[in-house]
Amino acid sequence: GRQPETLAASLALESNPGCAMQGGRLCSHPLTNQMENRRLLAYEKTIKERFANIIPVLKRIAGLQHAAEFVAQAQAIANQELGFDLPSRILADAWVTGLDMSALYGETVMRTLRLLAEQARTSNPPEAVDVDEAVSFMLDCGYHAVDISPCSDGRLKGLVRYILRLPTGAVRSSKSYAGAMFDVEANVKRWIETELMRFREGRPVTPDAGTRYLKMVVYHTSSSDPAHEGCAAHGSNEVRAAEKGLERLREFRQAIENSFCCGASVDTLLIGVDTATDAIKVHVPDADGEMSLYRAVDNLALYEQTVNDDGNTARLKVYQAIQAASAQGGGWGRGNGEPHEGMRRLIATLLINNLSQIEYVCGNWGGRYPDIGHNERFISVGDGFEEFQLRNLAYFAHLHTVEEGAPDMDVGINIFKKLNVNHGLPIPLAIHFRYDSRVPGCRERTVERCQRVQAALELRYGELARQGLLVCGMTVQDKRPGSPIESIEANDA
Amino acid sequence: GRQPETLAASLALESNPGCAMQGGRLCSHPLTNQMENRRLLAYEKTIKERFANIIPVLKRIAGLQHAAEFVAQAQAIANQELGFDLPSRILADAWVTGLDMSALYGETVMRTLRLLAEQARTSNPPEAVDVDEAVSFMLDCGYHAVDISPCSDGRLKGLVRYILRLPTGAVRSSKSYAGAMFDVEANVKRWIETELMRFREGRPVTPDAGTRYLKMVVYHTSSSDPAHEGCAAHGSNEVRAAEKGLERLREFRQAIENSFCCGASVDTLLIGVDTATDAIKVHVPDADGEMSLYRAVDNLALYEQTVNDDGNTARLKVYQAIQAASAQGGGWGRGNGEPHEGMRRLIATLLINNLSQIEYVCGNWGGRYPDIGHNERFISVGDGFEEFQLRNLAYFAHLHTVEEGAPDMDVGINIFKKLNVNHGLPIPLAIHFRYDSRVPGCRERTVERCQRVQAALELRYGELARQGLLVCGMTVQDKRPGSPIESIEANDA
Ligand SMILES: [Zn+2]
Ligand SMILES: [Zn+2]
Ligand SMILES: [Zn+2]
Ligand SMILES: [Zn+2]
Repeated sequence: GRQPETLAASLALESNPGCAMQGGRLCSHPLTNQMENRRLLAYEKTIKERFANIIPVLKRIAGLQHAAEFVAQAQAIANQELGFDLPSRILADAWVTGLDMSALYGETVMRTLRLLAEQARTSNPPEAVDVDEAVSFMLDCGYHAVDISPCSDGRLKGLVRYILRLPTGAVRSSKSYAGAMFDVEANVKRWIETELMRFREGRPVTPDAGTRYLKMVVYHTSSSDPAHEGCAAHGSNEVRAAEKGLERLREFRQAIENSFCCGASVDTLLIGVDTATDAIKVHVPDADGEMSLYRAVDNLALYEQTVNDDGNTARLKVYQAIQAASAQGGGWGRGNGEPHEGMRRLIATLLINNLSQIEYVCGNWGGRYPDIGHNERFISVGDGFEEFQLRNLAYFAHLHTVEEGAPDMDVGINIFKKLNVNHGLPIPLAIHFRYDSRVPGCRERTVERCQRVQAALELRYGELARQGLLVCGMTVQDKRPGSPIESIEANDA
Repeated sequence: GRQPETLAASLALESNPGCAMQGGRLCSHPLTNQMENRRLLAYEKTIKERFANIIPVLKRIAGLQHAAEFVAQAQAIANQELGFDLPSRILADAWVTGLDMSALYGETVMRTLRLLAEQARTSNPPEAVDVDEAVSFMLDCGYHAVDISPCSDGRLKGLVRYILRLPTGAVRSSKSYAGAMFDVEANVKRWIETELMRFREGRPVTPDAGTRYLKMVVYHTSSSDPAHEGCAAHGSNEVRAAEKGLERLREFRQAIENSFCCGASVDTLLIGVDTATDAIKVHVPDADGEMSLYRAVDNLALYEQTVNDDGNTARLKVYQAIQAASAQGGGWGRGNGEPHEGMRRLIATLLINNLSQIEYVCGNWGGRYPDIGHNERFISVGDGFEEFQLRNLAYFAHLHTVEEGAPDMDVGINIFKKLNVNHGLPIPLAIHFRYDSRVPGCRERTVERCQRVQAALELRYGELARQGLLVCGMTVQDKRPGSPIESIEANDA
């Protein structure tokens, strides 16, 4: 339900097995970026509090609905507490039909979301320096493009900025699919675009630099309740989720190798996330780029082994862990040697980055998130908001049409039936698509896509829509970094 | 309705104004490819007769349905007359419920279509020589790729092979949209793929060859009944159809120029077709590649002016007509000089090719098609069959999802309500998608797409489906030239 604070308070927190809390003293890993952890916590708190504030504020307003000056009073409270006006239509009708709390809730979530996105955009101008640095780092590892497909699950919504600690600009594409089952054909098209940029414009480097395209798949499990709170798309079966991810990666690589000549290929990387601790598990490729479910570095174990070391020792152990995984002599995890040096550096960096996140969960949540399951606030449909990269904030269904994206949408709707509908609250659907202002007519067509997708959602989930339990908001945004989010109405052209 | 022969016989044929029939003698243009005209006529007759045969054969079978040996008799007739077995399920039920003629008709159209496609594939192996020649010719004109978007209208289904007389392999892409309103974003993606091939593999030539990408839009009108039998998507308004086509071409060129640096651009060409005579009107670009609705060569007039000349004189007049269009001194048709030499050669070739088609219509139909309006046999949904390039055989809705392609589908369904449903016959929907066998899992996903599209069609046109007035057939085909057409059942995986 919608009360995470209560849930958190009532849960007896198990400690994180990787956590080295001693006599009440918090653990402190030598490789943690403390400043970044504080910054990320402040951001998470701001956003979560704004959403958590919605229900108390609406309850307060509901209590006033029979007062004489109700509309004015309600708007004053809304402006002070939420930062915007409520829809006056809903307020004005309250004296006749009673206040439509469900509609009000849906609208409030949408307005909160737009306000926060707008604030994120203006207060965090694109981190140009960090991005350049990250792109250079990726190039040093031998990659001109990094493309990540996580599961749509809201608990992975913070993947890039929190769990992996990469600046958004370092990742060429991050599109979510239920069970991380990304669209191979669409990905081949993205690969082609990246290739052409390299060949035609020498961006980010020319083809003779010998760099590669890296495709990552991120699956997940939950060590707090692995049989129920893992990946819904794979029946909470970790092995199955990992196997399917590996299979899809192999298909993608094969597609590139078969369809293009001159030794075209890609590097692939499979990563698992424990959504209870945010610790990652990296499946180390061998010298041929092949991975195995049974050859991986478990970063929670690594955290445990290095938390009391000094920085240099800890760093060395990270590299040794990668080496040890590659050196497995026999069994199912056996591979053909170590990956190339760039891949080793990349994996080491991801592991070290993730140590900060493990400590973030330790320091702020006692090692395990209190909301072990779903606790998303809205469903993000379409291209998703770059502005919100936060765990459990949104279930993200990347799609172009409901016809193709229905399986992903169904999973999300089922999650929100439990989270919202069962408590009388509607499901907020934030439909968001990006357009290319350089292409004439593209904005108009993107607005039409928003409207088409909304109509298709209202058709597919007709019963919910008729009961007012589906609240859609539509926004578009230019693809150029830092562009504003533009609200679309159902009758806009 | 479904009796074109009757329709043809009952129509008082107006003569073709371009036709120089003298004292009952058929006109004969010196530049006509007589052999090709005979070959194309034989092909058209075979295909059309097979489809025209369906109703008489089914009527004959219907007359036997109360006979003792009905099923065996019906199958014997079907095998002899149609070339395949009828679905025995439908025949076997006839004694109880009466023969379900509607279901039988739908199934027979689907089986005819598959049989003819299979015959076309095995008897006409890809014309490798012609294709190489056409590709070389295009390269000589300065084009490494030619991409055509005609209207979905069935009367343009013979565009490439009949009206323009180009071998299929010379055209990189030919996807139909209602009103020729092609998808700019999808076309940009196709441009990117073509570019990469050139840069990465030097196919068909390397970038330093200085060749260009040519995008053509083909709109249509009908000189037999311009106010009613023109382009349905543009309200049978020729000027509007042409204007919209020009606008979309400009958007596409702008999209390429704005999105890619280093002087990226494309050539564009707008062509109109008179579906009564198959004569084309070519809008001649100026030196800047700009076109005007009022600067064009009308090939019917050119036919008239050259039909009594010798070959060399006729050929010269074609080039002079292009020159004259470019040289217009004033008015709306005025442009900035002549197009580049390759474009002039291409236009001349298209005009000369089309002279053969004008004569084809003259010689075989007295200058005007008897079926001036719609007379399609089925709706082709998805990627379309390369095997069928024949006027009025199919309404072609190129789409990936019904959600996006609904406007195109609606136009087609409305056409078939008049053609078929009003006569108690179902609408045959041939859902056909091509897959890439080099991409693992692509065939399976393409089969799923077929099934998803069929389900979406049955949902959108639910009333027709419930009445048995929608008969879907699903087929997939590998993208490699000459691949067989594979039937898919609703429950295939
Ligand atoms: Zn700890
Ligand atoms: Zn999942
Ligand atoms: Zn004639
Ligand atoms: Zn049309």
